Amino acid sequence: MIHATAIVNDGAKIGNNVSIGPYSIIHKNAVIGDNTEIGAYCEIGLPTKLANGRPLIIGNGAVIRSHSVFYEGSTFGEKLVTGHRVTIRELTTAGDGFQIGTLGDIQGHCEIGDYVKCHSNVHIGQHSTVGNYVWIFPYVVLTNDPHPPSEVMAGVTIEDFAVIATMSVILPGVTVKKGALVGAHSSVNKDVNPDAVVAGSPAKFICGTEKIKLKDGSGNHAYPWRRHFHRGYPEKAVAEWIKEFS
Amino acid sequence: MIHATAIVNDGAKIGNNVSIGPYSIIHKNAVIGDNTEIGAYCEIGLPTKLANGRPLIIGNGAVIRSHSVFYEGSTFGEKLVTGHRVTIRELTTAGDGFQIGTLGDIQGHCEIGDYVKCHSNVHIGQHSTVGNYVWIFPYVVLTNDPHPPSEVMAGVTIEDFAVIATMSVILPGVTVKKGALVGAHSSVNKDVNPDAVVAGSPAKFICGTEKIKLKDGSGNHAYPWRRHFHRGYPEKAVAEWIKEFS
Amino acid sequence: MIHATAIVNDGAKIGNNVSIGPYSIIHKNAVIGDNTEIGAYCEIGLPTKLANGRPLIIGNGAVIRSHSVFYEGSTFGEKLVTGHRVTIRELTTAGDGFQIGTLGDIQGHCEIGDYVKCHSNVHIGQHSTVGNYVWIFPYVVLTNDPHPPSEVMAGVTIEDFAVIATMSVILPGVTVKKGALVGAHSSVNKDVNPDAVVAGSPAKFICGTEKIKLKDGSGNHAYPWRRHFHRGYPEKAVAEWIKEFS
Repeated sequence: MIHATAIVNDGAKIGNNVSIGPYSIIHKNAVIGDNTEIGAYCEIGLPTKLANGRPLIIGNGAVIRSHSVFYEGSTFGEKLVTGHRVTIRELTTAGDGFQIGTLGDIQGHCEIGDYVKCHSNVHIGQHSTVGNYVWIFPYVVLTNDPHPPSEVMAGVTIEDFAVIATMSVILPGVTVKKGALVGAHSSVNKDVNPDAVVAGSPAKFICGTEKIKLKDGSGNHAYPWRRHFHRGYPEKAVAEWIKEFS
Repeated sequence: MIHATAIVNDGAKIGNNVSIGPYSIIHKNAVIGDNTEIGAYCEIGLPTKLANGRPLIIGNGAVIRSHSVFYEGSTFGEKLVTGHRVTIRELTTAGDGFQIGTLGDIQGHCEIGDYVKCHSNVHIGQHSTVGNYVWIFPYVVLTNDPHPPSEVMAGVTIEDFAVIATMSVILPGVTVKKGALVGAHSSVNKDVNPDAVVAGSPAKFICGTEKIKLKDGSGNHAYPWRRHFHRGYPEKAVAEWIKEFS
Repeated sequence: MIHATAIVNDGAKIGNNVSIGPYSIIHKNAVIGDNTEIGAYCEIGLPTKLANGRPLIIGNGAVIRSHSVFYEGSTFGEKLVTGHRVTIRELTTAGDGFQIGTLGDIQGHCEIGDYVKCHSNVHIGQHSTVGNYVWIFPYVVLTNDPHPPSEVMAGVTIEDFAVIATMSVILPGVTVKKGALVGAHSSVNKDVNPDAVVAGSPAKFICGTEKIKLKDGSGNHAYPWRRHFHRGYPEKAVAEWIKEFS
């Protein structure tokens, strides 16, 4: 299941039932979990002095799509899924069920929780902190430098269940609190309250998320989204969510 | 003309006079038209269950640049041209003369007309409908989920001759009508009338497109652009446009 | 130091102590300086008629990261550094110390000075002019067509020491003058004065850059940034900057 053209360093630790696509390269300091699929033209465990020798650890059951690059020094839980051409720098930790879409770019030194889903072309700056069950949509940027360029770093925090819609920028040091929703094409320069909707540039408070109704004819609430959106989450979490809203 | 390092499945149907670059991979369920050029490091006809066995069909005379990925299950007319690193998911149909620039990302389940031109880094969400002779400029996103994340899909419609300028977001369910122009860095949350210019976030009506003059000293109208911009279009269409405005 | 799987044309001029990664392709019309590192899956010196036979020239000491594409016909000074997956079209000139991050896209026909730093996913349209010591942050687009699509080209000019923050669009023909700062998520439709801060869509004057203080507890000015930010610049330049502000 390792393609004949793949280049796999003898020092790499490859789990059971791992497939590695044509022309992919697995470097020495990579630890790859069981039942993982790696597409073509990927470079996994790319060396960097900045990782201080820490390995790249990819948990069981990952799917890494073609043309992706992972540096050494980051750790991923189980069931990682990537799109094509993602780039993940060193010293990032992500929990289980992390998804990062095509062209995703994680700059390193980030802490990411469980079941975080980033759509295509998301840019996560250094020192970002992302909770659990967060959604980040295409062309969102999490920044970190309050007066670029400088040596001051003020990473962004996105709390559990928050949603950042397409093409928004979260400015340095901002916290988007639990269950909040940032509308599309927004620029967020101050903290967003829990379960608040903000939008605009600079983003302003619009309403509570409970004001938004599902456009499916049901008249049900669209948020918290865990009321109705369960696809791809672990059964245990879904069972809790169903109980929470019943 | 098939490079020695290319991996071509015996089941793939390759037309006459096709060139395939170094290290590219052609999967089984791909049908590639005559006189097509495929660059290096491309993966063409990538299998997915979501295509239900439908092949990838690429018409005659295509140019597909390096590092691009096409899934099975989509169909393209003649003279497709891509930039580098495009990603095209399953179940999309595009007509003749489709151009999609470097880093373009089509999420699948889209209907695209003839002679549509997308510049670099355009993101076309699932269930988008794009007419004929449309222009979409860099970093534009066509969205589809009115309250993300949800199972509700409300794709965007872009009608013939419409133009979406750089870094604009078209929000779910919106129709940009024939010949309209969306200014750069806009967020469009309601339908745009034919031949109207809108801009801003949220986008507002600015004027009719007929108010915009060409900045070439001629004093001529800049829109409809088919009055003056003919490069790369078929002779027959250009002849009609010349007649229309003479 | 040239990997066994790399494809290097006999006509290419390769300097001393050059390393070329697995599966990379060096075309005939490439001139690569001494002590250069080229990662995996790169295509260097890609032929195009638009270069009129001009070679690609890469100065000494370059680092080109994986999956990058350089066309023939451009020239780079010493110590070029790229991220992954950059695309550089023909007939661009850049000075020494040019950095362009992951996913950067230079469309060609650009003039770029010394020690310009572009972060990830920057799009530089044709006929852009960029001075020395400029900073361009993620998802910025420099445009060029005042009424797209047309044959009129009005490139953007960014002068020395100017800073363009994340996800801003500079509209056609605009000049951002020396030391100016464009805030994040802005759309700039007219010239920006020297050392001015502008922000918004359309961008408006906010204040002079001297009003912004460093958020490091020092109470010092954040701009001109060369007062305090010296990392990665040549000793001679840094010595001048220290003298300038002492």
